[in-house]
Amino acid sequence: PRIAVVGAGQVGSTLAYACQIRGTANTVALFDTDAAKLRAQVLDLRHGGMFAPTVEVVGSDDVGICAGADVVVITAGARQRAGESRMALAGRNVRLCRALVPELCALAPEAVFLVVTNPVDVVTQAVLEVSGLPAHRVLGSGTVLDSSRLRALIAARAGVGVAGVCAYIVGEHGDTAVPLWSQAFIGSVPVLDWVVDGRQVFDEPARREIEDSVVGAAYEVIAGKGATNYAVGLAVTHVLEAILGDQRLILPVSAYVADFHGIGGVCLSLPRIVDRSGAGALEPTVPGTAELAGLRRCAHVIAKACRESGVDVCG
Amino acid sequence: PRIAVVGAGQVGSTLAYACQIRGTANTVALFDTDAAKLRAQVLDLRHGGMFAPTVEVVGSDDVGICAGADVVVITAGARQRAGESRMALAGRNVRLCRALVPELCALAPEAVFLVVTNPVDVVTQAVLEVSGLPAHRVLGSGTVLDSSRLRALIAARAGVGVAGVCAYIVGEHGDTAVPLWSQAFIGSVPVLDWVVDGRQVFDEPARREIEDSVVGAAYEVIAGKGATNYAVGLAVTHVLEAILGDQRLILPVSAYVADFHGIGGVCLSLPRIVDRSGAGALEPTVPGTAELAGLRRCAHVIAKACRESGVDVCG
Amino acid sequence: PRIAVVGAGQVGSTLAYACQIRGTANTVALFDTDAAKLRAQVLDLRHGGMFAPTVEVVGSDDVGICAGADVVVITAGARQRAGESRMALAGRNVRLCRALVPELCALAPEAVFLVVTNPVDVVTQAVLEVSGLPAHRVLGSGTVLDSSRLRALIAARAGVGVAGVCAYIVGEHGDTAVPLWSQAFIGSVPVLDWVVDGRQVFDEPARREIEDSVVGAAYEVIAGKGATNYAVGLAVTHVLEAILGDQRLILPVSAYVADFHGIGGVCLSLPRIVDRSGAGALEPTVPGTAELAGLRRCAHVIAKACRESGVDVCG
Amino acid sequence: PRIAVVGAGQVGSTLAYACQIRGTANTVALFDTDAAKLRAQVLDLRHGGMFAPTVEVVGSDDVGICAGADVVVITAGARQRAGESRMALAGRNVRLCRALVPELCALAPEAVFLVVTNPVDVVTQAVLEVSGLPAHRVLGSGTVLDSSRLRALIAARAGVGVAGVCAYIVGEHGDTAVPLWSQAFIGSVPVLDWVVDGRQVFDEPARREIEDSVVGAAYEVIAGKGATNYAVGLAVTHVLEAILGDQRLILPVSAYVADFHGIGGVCLSLPRIVDRSGAGALEPTVPGTAELAGLRRCAHVIAKACRESGVDVCG
Repeated sequence: PRIAVVGAGQVGSTLAYACQIRGTANTVALFDTDAAKLRAQVLDLRHGGMFAPTVEVVGSDDVGICAGADVVVITAGARQRAGESRMALAGRNVRLCRALVPELCALAPEAVFLVVTNPVDVVTQAVLEVSGLPAHRVLGSGTVLDSSRLRALIAARAGVGVAGVCAYIVGEHGDTAVPLWSQAFIGSVPVLDWVVDGRQVFDEPARREIEDSVVGAAYEVIAGKGATNYAVGLAVTHVLEAILGDQRLILPVSAYVADFHGIGGVCLSLPRIVDRSGAGALEPTVPGTAELAGLRRCAHVIAKACRESGVDVCG
Repeated sequence: PRIAVVGAGQVGSTLAYACQIRGTANTVALFDTDAAKLRAQVLDLRHGGMFAPTVEVVGSDDVGICAGADVVVITAGARQRAGESRMALAGRNVRLCRALVPELCALAPEAVFLVVTNPVDVVTQAVLEVSGLPAHRVLGSGTVLDSSRLRALIAARAGVGVAGVCAYIVGEHGDTAVPLWSQAFIGSVPVLDWVVDGRQVFDEPARREIEDSVVGAAYEVIAGKGATNYAVGLAVTHVLEAILGDQRLILPVSAYVADFHGIGGVCLSLPRIVDRSGAGALEPTVPGTAELAGLRRCAHVIAKACRESGVDVCG
Repeated sequence: PRIAVVGAGQVGSTLAYACQIRGTANTVALFDTDAAKLRAQVLDLRHGGMFAPTVEVVGSDDVGICAGADVVVITAGARQRAGESRMALAGRNVRLCRALVPELCALAPEAVFLVVTNPVDVVTQAVLEVSGLPAHRVLGSGTVLDSSRLRALIAARAGVGVAGVCAYIVGEHGDTAVPLWSQAFIGSVPVLDWVVDGRQVFDEPARREIEDSVVGAAYEVIAGKGATNYAVGLAVTHVLEAILGDQRLILPVSAYVADFHGIGGVCLSLPRIVDRSGAGALEPTVPGTAELAGLRRCAHVIAKACRESGVDVCG
Repeated sequence: PRIAVVGAGQVGSTLAYACQIRGTANTVALFDTDAAKLRAQVLDLRHGGMFAPTVEVVGSDDVGICAGADVVVITAGARQRAGESRMALAGRNVRLCRALVPELCALAPEAVFLVVTNPVDVVTQAVLEVSGLPAHRVLGSGTVLDSSRLRALIAARAGVGVAGVCAYIVGEHGDTAVPLWSQAFIGSVPVLDWVVDGRQVFDEPARREIEDSVVGAAYEVIAGKGATNYAVGLAVTHVLEAILGDQRLILPVSAYVADFHGIGGVCLSLPRIVDRSGAGALEPTVPGTAELAGLRRCAHVIAKACRESGVDVCG
């Protein structure tokens, strides 16, 4: 299979690197309009070919390099700066993606589109609108990374490997994101019932601390190193493997929601079955009342940002 | 790290093969008293070295090959025949393992012992007794494989990838094994609440059908091909990687239970945190009433088989 | 991608297992006319799905399961018995494959055919003839495994990892196979020039010993365990990955040779570039005189066996 | 096993990322004196833990985090700027490493030291001197990356996968590096003898073009993206796996050379057997006359830079 990555910045290139090491596809094609930067990234990736020989990395400043892709990953766009919220990027990045998508659709008519550019929910909605594709063919990385951060913190506190934790953050990939504590598990035990020596490990203060950590995580990383790239690179690779491998993984990707307990009309993140066709059926989950209220708030925030960026919202 | 595998029959050799392909350890050492068979298995494995170059497979009919192992896997023993229950093997295999363990302990004084020989709970108890090791250092593959079978069937019926299913079979690796339906999940949704088009997918008849399939699985495979080897090979490799990689995975291995809701005194399978030290803390799970009753039955069956094979049981 | 494996005996099933563990394809489909054995193998493989979740194993005693395969691997047929040469199997296995191929071609019209059934050169020639496919679309596992055995022995004697050895056995996958000593390397040093403390390590007696080991290897394994399966499973998986991943690996597969230094008209093994289209260009190697004579002998042996089995040979 | 990485800049962090994805060790410990940057890198790496669960990444601005490491990788130091040669960095980086090494030796008394900081040959020599370790315990990444670049270019021009190419650049990791064309192979064919349609593919002009590309590669990448990180991250990971896995790979690492065809007294890169003990025996290669002259030049350049940086050189 062939992956096309639009944007060879930190995120796009690191994602290509993760795909190269993991052998996610036969070919990873990078596209960026900055020819010198693009060529440097592609050379640096190709020079490691001897140590990751199953993936060919190619690149060009001509968008034609994306032709025939099975998945088009959109990472291009201005990125979050220290202290800036993701929504502040909306206008610029929506315009950029709108401009690119028609040609990408023509070049890769069978592709699933995977949006990483922030604010990811708004940009995903914009790509869905301008592409005219069926809803399942356009998805965003959503809260896959946020959920990974949540799981890492739960796992560390419980003293178990992260593979044993199932927990989702849903809604917006941003400041209103909602952790679904009522439906989080360690092994087969609800996180809320995890006790050690008779003491509840994830009590209210512990949960607040974890939530603050997750919300503050991207800000802290950006403050310290100027950008996030490693975790997002692996998170997107995970989604790509679910798609290309038709793995039917349950992932909190951003995709169009028609009606989830009365919430809908925009792209937002909920656990869904991700397969070769893209974003499949929603997990039949029933969030608690406060969690649903949080989700409704997310939908409003995303819809508002969409309207302000000139992106249509249903209903 | 170095793995020693005692017994180069179908299970021991296939397990070595899975470790070789996955790169589970630097060295896999096979020991078997049948020198011709052993040499054939080792040659066949070594001939593939070019395609799996990170693992060295060695072997001998001298038990000294096990020296210095980080984990000793015991697969030796008579195996289940078509129609025969696992418990029928107890006497012979307990005697065999008892005879081997003292020398293995001397050769690999730091090793964790992982028992695969059936009936696995009884043999694990026997190895624990004769070795005099701390309880966490002796574990059995237990119901790891049964749980994998259960998950595969749940995943297929729900139409999701098996990675999204968390479900355990506990108790005996045998006819009285207990599926913990009340604590099984697909993504973050209890299996019992998984609905499609308003219909409960895992209703009573569906669950019965799945249970029958799991219980009958080994019998059916043995009837059709004379032995099981592939799935058990991967299941044991998974446990080995949890140990050697200190992964703190939650796995239903068989290990000594002192007191779990009043049940104890023998080795049986419950979800535990498996790490470099072996079988760690139990998951703080609270089974339903019927499930507890089933577990109690398992403990009785195992204790009875232990006594009949001359293995001490506490309490 | 989808792999179809014809024949669920030891070789076909072990090959499916290696593909499952390595994640070689999205789907591995097993076909065998013995429904009970097939179902047992498929169940045993599927039960391990939790530990190798990226590959789906399916199977049927209806050949329709092979539909749409990207590669069809043929492992069906009588297998070598202790003391029997591979050529003795020719008649039976050629008839069997001839009978299967037309339907397989119809079901998987885009597939590359990879023959493992012995005598592999003769059966490959038969499949090429009856399929009417372009020559590059039909290849046999050839001497890939023999070369792996040779490399393992060279590596062990030189005290280096097998990844550092490049050496080929060519010609027939059988008793007349030819090791190309003049073109074998350890790192960048010709094997013949590898010296330790001023002494040539691979002198004439050492080479003889290694050759005898390689030729005797299959016989010894069959004598000890009744069949070879592990190494051949990995070797064929390696060829499959070269094809599906378009890796352009140089592998000594069996394929039709039109004219190699005057030798040709049959399928035999020479180092070739293996890519998505199957058996590509020959490596531009120039064997020594004795090696060429050996190759000519191989071509005669294969051509004779073809004629005796009713398979056409050119020239 | 545990890897300690000294320096959490682009190279150190990307290397940690490659190790995390590949599962190279159980623990990767990052150390850097810049606490904010360090914490950001470690958080970014840890957030991806769910997708690479077998490796734990930890970090601190206290060097004590390196305690007990099996390999200490030194990446700290000023890095090459656009247009600057690697040797210009020598003085500063030698001082930095000298200051760190005694404490690192005390914290990790059994460790192999792997130097990546440039100029790598000079810094390796300095670490060897100040540590007082046996020569095999101190090695540098040397020309492993340069050789990978050379192989990638040869493979692309020959139309084969890079796994089929064996070629080394030796001597200095810098402007005087020497490609060993006389001992480079594609499959079993000398690169110089690779013909397509009767035409030599790697004639003099082709070789010059490739050499210029290799030498200019780092400069071009640095000009385009400000640093190299991806390929060097994978190259060092490859060396780490050779060491930790005792793989006996033949790699052109930098290590002390006592006398190689009359050349010696400094650390420089030649193909060596790399195993658990570090830099093992030299491959018994015999370079051509011009190649030996080039190597001698490398030794002079390195020795001169050593002396100018106050590092002892033998003879």
